[in-house]
Amino acid sequence: MTDATQVFHDIAAIREKNPLVLSITNYVVTNTTANALLALGASPIMSHAAEEMAELVAISGALVINLGTVAPEYLAAMDPAWAAADEAGVPVILDPVGAGASMLRTVTPLALLANHKAAIVRGNASEIMTLAGASCASAGASKGVDSTARSLDAAGCAQDLARRLDCVVVVSGEVDLVCSAQGCARVFGGSALMPRVTGLGCTATALCGAFAAVNPDPFAAALSACVTMKVAGELAAEKSAGPGTLQLHFYDALYALNEADLATRLRLER
Amino acid sequence: MTDATQVFHDIAAIREKNPLVLSITNYVVTNTTANALLALGASPIMSHAAEEMAELVAISGALVINLGTVAPEYLAAMDPAWAAADEAGVPVILDPVGAGASMLRTVTPLALLANHKAAIVRGNASEIMTLAGASCASAGASKGVDSTARSLDAAGCAQDLARRLDCVVVVSGEVDLVCSAQGCARVFGGSALMPRVTGLGCTATALCGAFAAVNPDPFAAALSACVTMKVAGELAAEKSAGPGTLQLHFYDALYALNEADLATRLRLER
Amino acid sequence: MTDATQVFHDIAAIREKNPLVLSITNYVVTNTTANALLALGASPIMSHAAEEMAELVAISGALVINLGTVAPEYLAAMDPAWAAADEAGVPVILDPVGAGASMLRTVTPLALLANHKAAIVRGNASEIMTLAGASCASAGASKGVDSTARSLDAAGCAQDLARRLDCVVVVSGEVDLVCSAQGCARVFGGSALMPRVTGLGCTATALCGAFAAVNPDPFAAALSACVTMKVAGELAAEKSAGPGTLQLHFYDALYALNEADLATRLRLER
Repeated sequence: MTDATQVFHDIAAIREKNPLVLSITNYVVTNTTANALLALGASPIMSHAAEEMAELVAISGALVINLGTVAPEYLAAMDPAWAAADEAGVPVILDPVGAGASMLRTVTPLALLANHKAAIVRGNASEIMTLAGASCASAGASKGVDSTARSLDAAGCAQDLARRLDCVVVVSGEVDLVCSAQGCARVFGGSALMPRVTGLGCTATALCGAFAAVNPDPFAAALSACVTMKVAGELAAEKSAGPGTLQLHFYDALYALNEADLATRLRLER
Repeated sequence: MTDATQVFHDIAAIREKNPLVLSITNYVVTNTTANALLALGASPIMSHAAEEMAELVAISGALVINLGTVAPEYLAAMDPAWAAADEAGVPVILDPVGAGASMLRTVTPLALLANHKAAIVRGNASEIMTLAGASCASAGASKGVDSTARSLDAAGCAQDLARRLDCVVVVSGEVDLVCSAQGCARVFGGSALMPRVTGLGCTATALCGAFAAVNPDPFAAALSACVTMKVAGELAAEKSAGPGTLQLHFYDALYALNEADLATRLRLER
Repeated sequence: MTDATQVFHDIAAIREKNPLVLSITNYVVTNTTANALLALGASPIMSHAAEEMAELVAISGALVINLGTVAPEYLAAMDPAWAAADEAGVPVILDPVGAGASMLRTVTPLALLANHKAAIVRGNASEIMTLAGASCASAGASKGVDSTARSLDAAGCAQDLARRLDCVVVVSGEVDLVCSAQGCARVFGGSALMPRVTGLGCTATALCGAFAAVNPDPFAAALSACVTMKVAGELAAEKSAGPGTLQLHFYDALYALNEADLATRLRLER
């Protein structure tokens, strides 16, 4: 099976099964990540009501925990939700938004990861280097929620982190890295306009959730998510005059993405 | 007066009076429902600050209570707001988002409805069947915030619920139902792309608020809202390549909607 | 230096330095104001976690405090954030959303302003007249978050307020006013469609933050922000069929704005 066939196989599964993806996410991207999930074929639900987490996790194909809003009322739902997912065997995708920008944003993902098992951790280079700790952190300081480092420079740190956490680590950037303890695959493509749209990183995290809901191999799921982001982003950028129109064409591209687009545009190195 | 004339009469009243519509709503749709209300001609305000509810209700033409975010800080504002609306005679529109998906989402709307009078309850088939209870609920299980049942199959349950609550019940779906104790009107149209945009159900609820603010008959107001959704959705879909562009053209269609569009496209059975 | 050259100089500085703009803002506009800041070239971060405010303020070029969501969990972050900004010399932009619509929305900005120094206060005519107090407030009653008064009618009140607070006061409207104790500049342009898009006022506030981060003169920064809003809005409106498409073209226009556009379209009276 070619890579394009494999990615399209996962997309077709999402479109057929419409998996429920539960997100505890930040209030900047609730709407845009829900729209991306719907456009791809998944069924999003957003909540941070701790009281309903176990019930919702039980009917979900994946749980996305995004740390973009680190206010206490959001944080309170994360541990119970993740505990329910651990118990139910539901894959969890963690997005450590802004790790390195404040103590709270650095400590929170580390504390969650100390107690729970992630299937996939996705961030930008600064965030992943912060979580990897020590020498990595000093090289990749965050500037708010944007990265100051290039994704390729985070490869070693990401691989270390993947080994330590026994999970897949994704570093988004000009080139996306999908890393296991054994090494990183590189996904090329996309558009320079993409970082000018807020929350496309969070969207990549959300799509990791949709793919993990249909593909039990987190590495393959993360790879499908990154390829989908890059190809849909590239298709959208060709029709766009700027970041405003890009966002809309991006949803349309997710909705219409077919195997021929993937075969033509997918660029991947392992 | 034809149905199209009646709907347009309501739209013209909204455009002329710009009624304030107060929404306690979920954080996925604050922006999109505010934009829909503005595009139609109403004046939206979103809040969940319990302290200001009585003051805001007093200047509002309608109160929309949407249960998409059931975190305690949101729920706390709903009872005082609705009590103020009861007292001031301001019509209340309730959207029981995800009723059936968790105990909290099922119990909360029922508790509110036990204490207060709604003008209109709007949901998808699963949500309405859950509220209708017993045999209805078992037939219409929710999957997160999406319906597993078809709107037409909820007609009997919706009519029962309308009778019991003495209000209008709207079931959105491929066909929209507007139900009183006496029966359901059916509104046709729209586009298969609409469920692929997050929050268009919540938008229908918000528009029910705008129409209820200018039309004292909740059945007529709900019917105008459903017709407006279907016709604007259809107009938007004709210009759209997917759900991303649909959302934008939908606002434009709400803004430009005229009586001729309604006369040509309105499809309604009583 | 012409006005257009001055404004473009500021825009070029934002594009070069990508200043971090920290916003405690309302949940209707988190996404849209983040997108506007990114499109212009700034780096947005949104938070209301009191615990991280001092750290984030320390790396920010400006702090935007927007009172659109006045729930306690949002309000709690504002005083500590502003205190940190006072100490660090970071300019603060205040948006008193809905001042006059409720006691809470009137008292909150006044209490913050009694304890802290703003660089710029931006609102619509009703909001600014409410803050100016007494005779001003009675002439400019708010209707929710929309103004009932015209911006030009608020000139005297805005100038009074600027004198009293020793800051710049911006009144957005059909004509934007940028006022100091010495008087108001008037910025013309934009489009009648702009008030039909939710949060473009909040976007003006956010852009004031971006400009204040690169220009130490708050009057010049506010003027650049208003000119940018008017010119980008005008460019966007020419491509738009309604408020939906306007919003998207507006981001594209911010992204592509060049000195020639400014030279041709800037209309300013001092």
